[in-house]
Amino acid sequence: MARRPYELHYWPGIQGRGEFVRLALEAAGAEYIDVARGDKREGRGIAAMMAYLEGDATARPPFACPFLVDGKTVVGQTAAILQYLGPKLGLVPASEADRLWTHQVQLTIADFVVEAHDLHHPVAAGLYYEDQKPEALRRAREFRRERVPKFFRWFERVLERNPKNLRGASPHVVGARLSYADLSLFQAVEGTLYALPKTARRVMKKTPRLAALREAVAGDKRLAAYLASDRRVPFNEQGIFRHYAELDA
Amino acid sequence: MARRPYELHYWPGIQGRGEFVRLALEAAGAEYIDVARGDKREGRGIAAMMAYLEGDATARPPFACPFLVDGKTVVGQTAAILQYLGPKLGLVPASEADRLWTHQVQLTIADFVVEAHDLHHPVAAGLYYEDQKPEALRRAREFRRERVPKFFRWFERVLERNPKNLRGASPHVVGARLSYADLSLFQAVEGTLYALPKTARRVMKKTPRLAALREAVAGDKRLAAYLASDRRVPFNEQGIFRHYAELDA
Repeated sequence: MARRPYELHYWPGIQGRGEFVRLALEAAGAEYIDVARGDKREGRGIAAMMAYLEGDATARPPFACPFLVDGKTVVGQTAAILQYLGPKLGLVPASEADRLWTHQVQLTIADFVVEAHDLHHPVAAGLYYEDQKPEALRRAREFRRERVPKFFRWFERVLERNPKNLRGASPHVVGARLSYADLSLFQAVEGTLYALPKTARRVMKKTPRLAALREAVAGDKRLAAYLASDRRVPFNEQGIFRHYAELDA
Repeated sequence: MARRPYELHYWPGIQGRGEFVRLALEAAGAEYIDVARGDKREGRGIAAMMAYLEGDATARPPFACPFLVDGKTVVGQTAAILQYLGPKLGLVPASEADRLWTHQVQLTIADFVVEAHDLHHPVAAGLYYEDQKPEALRRAREFRRERVPKFFRWFERVLERNPKNLRGASPHVVGARLSYADLSLFQAVEGTLYALPKTARRVMKKTPRLAALREAVAGDKRLAAYLASDRRVPFNEQGIFRHYAELDA
């Protein structure tokens, strides 16, 4: 009997944090339902997602989406979802030490994602960007000068110190094969290139391995097909990575 | 042969994120060395910590402290450290499902901690509070009105839905025994009471289980001894939870 498809629950219309999970499911060719993007008449849509978050029936309710439903298991928190899915999708090496490291890298990517979001929302996620623009302009200066270089240099170092990365071959975060952390790193770089193209291109002159990883992931056969499909929501100004030209330099 | 003590690496002088790990080590009565608070003449102190972060010798260098050194294993990211230590210290239930849930709660506490920090540093962690006070005042209003209630209500729901929590007994995040998530929740509440006493007391009128958990953890024999010792760094205005009266209401 075929396994039941995974259910991914996330806001439709944006890539957001859901995209990190979606990339893993797509890269593995896993069957999944993107529940909140589905049809209400089939029991999907946003209401189906909210039932888990706000209803009384979930014994262990996630704090927020994205969350994954796999039979009776409900898992929230992007990094925890990927840690859960990694072994099932073949997107993490087998050893405990390698898995711990992959998760640690993922949590650091998550930290970067928080900062990439708060760049345009330094006062409150609940207010519009237009209502916190002076604060965002200040935050952006620090983010461009200090934070993007610091994170990207660390990502580069991670790739540099992976002993399985051979000169000339596509680099990986851990081991010699594609992991969910590679996919998430691709997404973090892709998002930064969209949001802050000048900053990203400047910083990436000094992170050749990170640039190569991005190319390699984008060229993965399944990933390339996904990225060209309408399942990939385009970057836009409601998501985490937003392009406001005044924040870039 | 006795096992080698764990090494905890974190900035001296503040509780910060290191405290979440320290509480677990202390509650379990584990032997550990607080490396950066140690003596340079014994190979400890801040330089010993920085060697891991900035030196060439660490194959898998953490992005930041806190990190834990356990023999050859180096683990960064607070939530990952606790996930690693939990089973070894007897601070998490045995089942995979319970462990996943405990980690998920921990990651949500970590999200709260980021917001509690950015409250006084909405523009940049690298600038002084005094240089971002107008932005902090705006952020504080949203944090008090929206975010603290949202997180605390979710923590309360977590305690409410744990079927092992019996009426009248001390509540736990998961199962019927102390876990590292209980300790971290205690620290999050304690920190909020320090930073924003008016806000915390108001919100906690509606979160009786969270209040009871805080009391229970503070009353744990080993924890009480630790909290009264000079190993517990007092809250102060260099840490994550800072008391600036103008941010509270």
